[in-house]
Amino acid sequence: MIKVAIVGASGYTGVELIRLLANHPQVEIACLTSRQNAGEQIAAVFPSLLERITLACDGSETGVVIEKADVVFTALPHQAAMAVVPDLLAAGKKVIDLSADYRLRDAAVYEAWYQKHSSPELLKEAVYGLPEIYREQVRCARLVANPGCYPTSVALALAPLLKRGLIDPASLIVDSKSGTSGAGRSAKVGSLFCEVNEGFQAYGVAKHRHTPEIEQTLGDLAGKPVMINFTPHLLPVNRGILSTCYASLQESRTTAELLAAFREEYADEPFVRVHPAGSLPNVAYVRASNYCDLGVVSDSRTGRVIVVSAIDNLVKGAAGQAVQNMNLMLGFEESAGLTGLPVFP
Amino acid sequence: MIKVAIVGASGYTGVELIRLLANHPQVEIACLTSRQNAGEQIAAVFPSLLERITLACDGSETGVVIEKADVVFTALPHQAAMAVVPDLLAAGKKVIDLSADYRLRDAAVYEAWYQKHSSPELLKEAVYGLPEIYREQVRCARLVANPGCYPTSVALALAPLLKRGLIDPASLIVDSKSGTSGAGRSAKVGSLFCEVNEGFQAYGVAKHRHTPEIEQTLGDLAGKPVMINFTPHLLPVNRGILSTCYASLQESRTTAELLAAFREEYADEPFVRVHPAGSLPNVAYVRASNYCDLGVVSDSRTGRVIVVSAIDNLVKGAAGQAVQNMNLMLGFEESAGLTGLPVFP
Amino acid sequence: MIKVAIVGASGYTGVELIRLLANHPQVEIACLTSRQNAGEQIAAVFPSLLERITLACDGSETGVVIEKADVVFTALPHQAAMAVVPDLLAAGKKVIDLSADYRLRDAAVYEAWYQKHSSPELLKEAVYGLPEIYREQVRCARLVANPGCYPTSVALALAPLLKRGLIDPASLIVDSKSGTSGAGRSAKVGSLFCEVNEGFQAYGVAKHRHTPEIEQTLGDLAGKPVMINFTPHLLPVNRGILSTCYASLQESRTTAELLAAFREEYADEPFVRVHPAGSLPNVAYVRASNYCDLGVVSDSRTGRVIVVSAIDNLVKGAAGQAVQNMNLMLGFEESAGLTGLPVFP
Amino acid sequence: MIKVAIVGASGYTGVELIRLLANHPQVEIACLTSRQNAGEQIAAVFPSLLERITLACDGSETGVVIEKADVVFTALPHQAAMAVVPDLLAAGKKVIDLSADYRLRDAAVYEAWYQKHSSPELLKEAVYGLPEIYREQVRCARLVANPGCYPTSVALALAPLLKRGLIDPASLIVDSKSGTSGAGRSAKVGSLFCEVNEGFQAYGVAKHRHTPEIEQTLGDLAGKPVMINFTPHLLPVNRGILSTCYASLQESRTTAELLAAFREEYADEPFVRVHPAGSLPNVAYVRASNYCDLGVVSDSRTGRVIVVSAIDNLVKGAAGQAVQNMNLMLGFEESAGLTGLPVFP
Repeated sequence: MIKVAIVGASGYTGVELIRLLANHPQVEIACLTSRQNAGEQIAAVFPSLLERITLACDGSETGVVIEKADVVFTALPHQAAMAVVPDLLAAGKKVIDLSADYRLRDAAVYEAWYQKHSSPELLKEAVYGLPEIYREQVRCARLVANPGCYPTSVALALAPLLKRGLIDPASLIVDSKSGTSGAGRSAKVGSLFCEVNEGFQAYGVAKHRHTPEIEQTLGDLAGKPVMINFTPHLLPVNRGILSTCYASLQESRTTAELLAAFREEYADEPFVRVHPAGSLPNVAYVRASNYCDLGVVSDSRTGRVIVVSAIDNLVKGAAGQAVQNMNLMLGFEESAGLTGLPVFP
Repeated sequence: MIKVAIVGASGYTGVELIRLLANHPQVEIACLTSRQNAGEQIAAVFPSLLERITLACDGSETGVVIEKADVVFTALPHQAAMAVVPDLLAAGKKVIDLSADYRLRDAAVYEAWYQKHSSPELLKEAVYGLPEIYREQVRCARLVANPGCYPTSVALALAPLLKRGLIDPASLIVDSKSGTSGAGRSAKVGSLFCEVNEGFQAYGVAKHRHTPEIEQTLGDLAGKPVMINFTPHLLPVNRGILSTCYASLQESRTTAELLAAFREEYADEPFVRVHPAGSLPNVAYVRASNYCDLGVVSDSRTGRVIVVSAIDNLVKGAAGQAVQNMNLMLGFEESAGLTGLPVFP
Repeated sequence: MIKVAIVGASGYTGVELIRLLANHPQVEIACLTSRQNAGEQIAAVFPSLLERITLACDGSETGVVIEKADVVFTALPHQAAMAVVPDLLAAGKKVIDLSADYRLRDAAVYEAWYQKHSSPELLKEAVYGLPEIYREQVRCARLVANPGCYPTSVALALAPLLKRGLIDPASLIVDSKSGTSGAGRSAKVGSLFCEVNEGFQAYGVAKHRHTPEIEQTLGDLAGKPVMINFTPHLLPVNRGILSTCYASLQESRTTAELLAAFREEYADEPFVRVHPAGSLPNVAYVRASNYCDLGVVSDSRTGRVIVVSAIDNLVKGAAGQAVQNMNLMLGFEESAGLTGLPVFP
Repeated sequence: MIKVAIVGASGYTGVELIRLLANHPQVEIACLTSRQNAGEQIAAVFPSLLERITLACDGSETGVVIEKADVVFTALPHQAAMAVVPDLLAAGKKVIDLSADYRLRDAAVYEAWYQKHSSPELLKEAVYGLPEIYREQVRCARLVANPGCYPTSVALALAPLLKRGLIDPASLIVDSKSGTSGAGRSAKVGSLFCEVNEGFQAYGVAKHRHTPEIEQTLGDLAGKPVMINFTPHLLPVNRGILSTCYASLQESRTTAELLAAFREEYADEPFVRVHPAGSLPNVAYVRASNYCDLGVVSDSRTGRVIVVSAIDNLVKGAAGQAVQNMNLMLGFEESAGLTGLPVFP
């Protein structure tokens, strides 16, 4: 059994990593850290774990993590992650970082959208952990930058079209909707039940930090720089991202032709499901699973294609994808620990 | 007191009309009809009305309605509405029809998206009841076709830009999200709590029947035919539509410049509120009110403008707008009965 | 127009008071205070108020309030309220206090459940503002202690039975469920959307601070001290309290007999509605209204009666009842400003 | 691999059985039946199963089931179940029936609360499948009557107290709240999203059909007939039952003493978790798992104990408990296929 640590275990991504790793056949959760709940039983923080996880939270000292574990998931906010990742790597650990700190290859882009980077030299080495696109690089990585939830949902939606040159990269408009767990577990008025429930709004319009991350991957796929409109919205559900993506077709294609491209692209992918024509994804159909569901419609009136993707932001959008990356890095079966079916209803 | 009737009172639009009309200072609810609840007290159907509305539902005979009321709201499904509207008009009633039956001026377009029309001669006479755009025609109308919920949210979002030629009409993409009351009160598996709650999906992609209605109004505003991509989604809230509209600017404009156009356009409108820069609408902020809230962002990177509109689909998207139209038709204060503030939270 | 102030306007009770008072025909909102949003437009705090309420929040100095208003609603947490109420009274204002500070007549009881009281001399004077039970005292009060939300729902449910001696006061068990707005608008992890949504739990079992307040009123009704079991639960809805009350009947009574007692008790009450036999209240049927709906079932197998009451915790449980009390204190029509029908769905 | 069938696979209990059995290491789903979706792919009915379950639904002929499977789960409404169970038994199958048809030992009681029973002779043989109470009988059963969701939550809450004679069986009051999936997947107005969401109500007061089932088990535990007040409520969540149980203590006991009894009772139970003092269950902490969480509070003021239990109605209240029963009947590890942790948030 490989010993793993979760640094930053008391957030929603942390508890989801615990849920998945607790049932993983080849790993043992050896260490959980939490600055604010140091010393506390994790099952007191999350009673869902009662009688199953008997660890107490360690504080934030990297030394303890290094001593107890061989593989480390860092589930910290950006900026906090880069304060610990270099030490973990220096100690010979494999690291899956769930923050944004190592996702952008260009330090200047990172610094334009976030803040100063303290370990820019690692940006070249870090592998962007979207296995469907960068699988081989992930296998050999020491440091995987686990993708953002929105970027995962968008890249998988558009990859088959961009790789095949079927759409105009200058025409991309992405309208995304995310469940509230994406906002994290910190106490903010805007995340209160009464502010979110029975409400719906856009936020971060034309300035959300996932924009450059999305554009980096789409640029790789298109073979040239891509600029998009990306509009996130806050959805009154716990889990799930649905991205509705619009693009102009380079030449007219039927829905059936486009679906064939999607099926070809994802034929061997364990976690991407292409809906049949006439059926569209719903975040409810992927809940608590590592699936990304895709649906495609060609609109002959306007010459545009609409691709809809659905993921669980905490699984394929965070903890599940991180486990998938770990599986690849350690040579495990890629779907180990990730075989649970979606929970519906 | 003017006597009004609601034909089809046992749906969600019906009960919302009752709520609004019960507090209207110049009308009296004289007749409620319901095929399936004929003979039943309306307060037994909707206990929210207990001790306030003591009418029993009449059946569906038009004669009773004609006898009891002078103004009639028809809140029936399409096709059912056109079976009664001509008789009501022939009897000298003023009619506000909340179905789709008289919204499209061109019978051929109606028949392409719906089914055969039995009173196409009325299509020319019917006035599309969006007061912010067609106010003067509404004032003199016998028959008002009350707009659809989605079309209201889209037309108000794009009117200032199309009228001023600020955007390319060929570039319009509309991503809309509607609360579940928009699906009506009939018993369908797809509208069950467990199917909708914690879920989110697109539906009717590239084929929703509100598309030609939206395009008719946008065409009037643009002065030429307009074709759009319109993607509706089902939102797990009771009330509210949020439409996120994308368009390419004809030439570069700042958010401030665009907001100035919106404020100019809607300066005297009692039910349109333009959010200040940096603030965006939320369906929660218009709940149970007749407001349409608008927010605008210019994205200089892509040269596109994003307009977000929020309405309560049962009020400004249905019953409230119908009362607003009635007020205009009868020469009442336009906001009579519609002064309630949004219910938040 | 009477000038009113709301001290503590940036909470959920504050915004609900604004919503109700803005449409009240005889008052004018002259002053809003908020410690944390001082200087800010209230419509920036609550965009639901955009273009309707153009006041900025004053800070917490009592002097400003005294200068601007004649009637003051104090919507502050307990302990904060008693720091301002005596000064307001000394300046000749009428005060409706929505905190718990003046609800308990016995300072010792208050201090056992809360903390030291700084103006115990006012406890004798303060009138408990439940008009259905203490209407005449409210009419002449300078200081009304507006009841808690749970206590309102319980007292109205049990009053007809206790006053008539139909039940054993030693047998009372109250199982209450409250919407999340009852927890207020402060940023706490326990009130986050993801913690509340799709969850349900009891809290404060056998120790909730509303217990002595409920027992005080029930004791008045029974004519002797009463002790109850009171179990509140947190409901994943914005608004609404449903209390399910159990009591042993002194002698066997049918549901019809018990309903007759309820109808007799509340025959002239504008805001209490007794459901017919076989129908039961739902928080959805009173939403955004000042109604308290009641349902009664006699269980002949066990000799117990079950009474179910439903209110909107922000209206009859707080702001609406406060306006009702103001109306009585100022000699207005009791239902002025409170005639809105419930918003359903 | 043992071949299993699910008769009635297109309901919520059906799809949950599929989710659990698909990951069970020792069984293979060999047959799914559905009257209304006969011939259809089950993954078209429930897209959550896409690419994982490739079976089509058989119709309702028992012969097909008998041919394809050795163990049968009947997930049908009451009355429909007893039409097929005798044939399945006669063909030598082991049957876990999730309906109410074989839960009550006394045919007269069944017929008083439901309707005529067509195979009363099986009532004596059927074993009530609550393993924590009847485990040894389950091991040898041919026919297990899988308990109702409410009865499971109540029996586990009260067993430790009744078995030890700590409470007065005449004092029992049970206030239960169930998620909406308990109402099933049939299209009814009362189960529509807009009727349930933001609502809360009691139903079936003093006449719910789970009452005799609860009383039968509590009677076994008490060693004498027990009569209770049972009040179910409809909770606006997909999954979960919380039961709040009230009883008078025979003599005064502290919370710590009562908790000790609970811990002793359930020390070796894999699926019952007793919360520590001061902590209470939440349906969110058991979601999608087979756990029953329990919390206990002694109220010295009134001499009563309050026990709160939480289960997922579709798992421990239906499909999960059915799998647990199957495991016992087939000699598998009792928790096989049931080791998933709760999904939070």
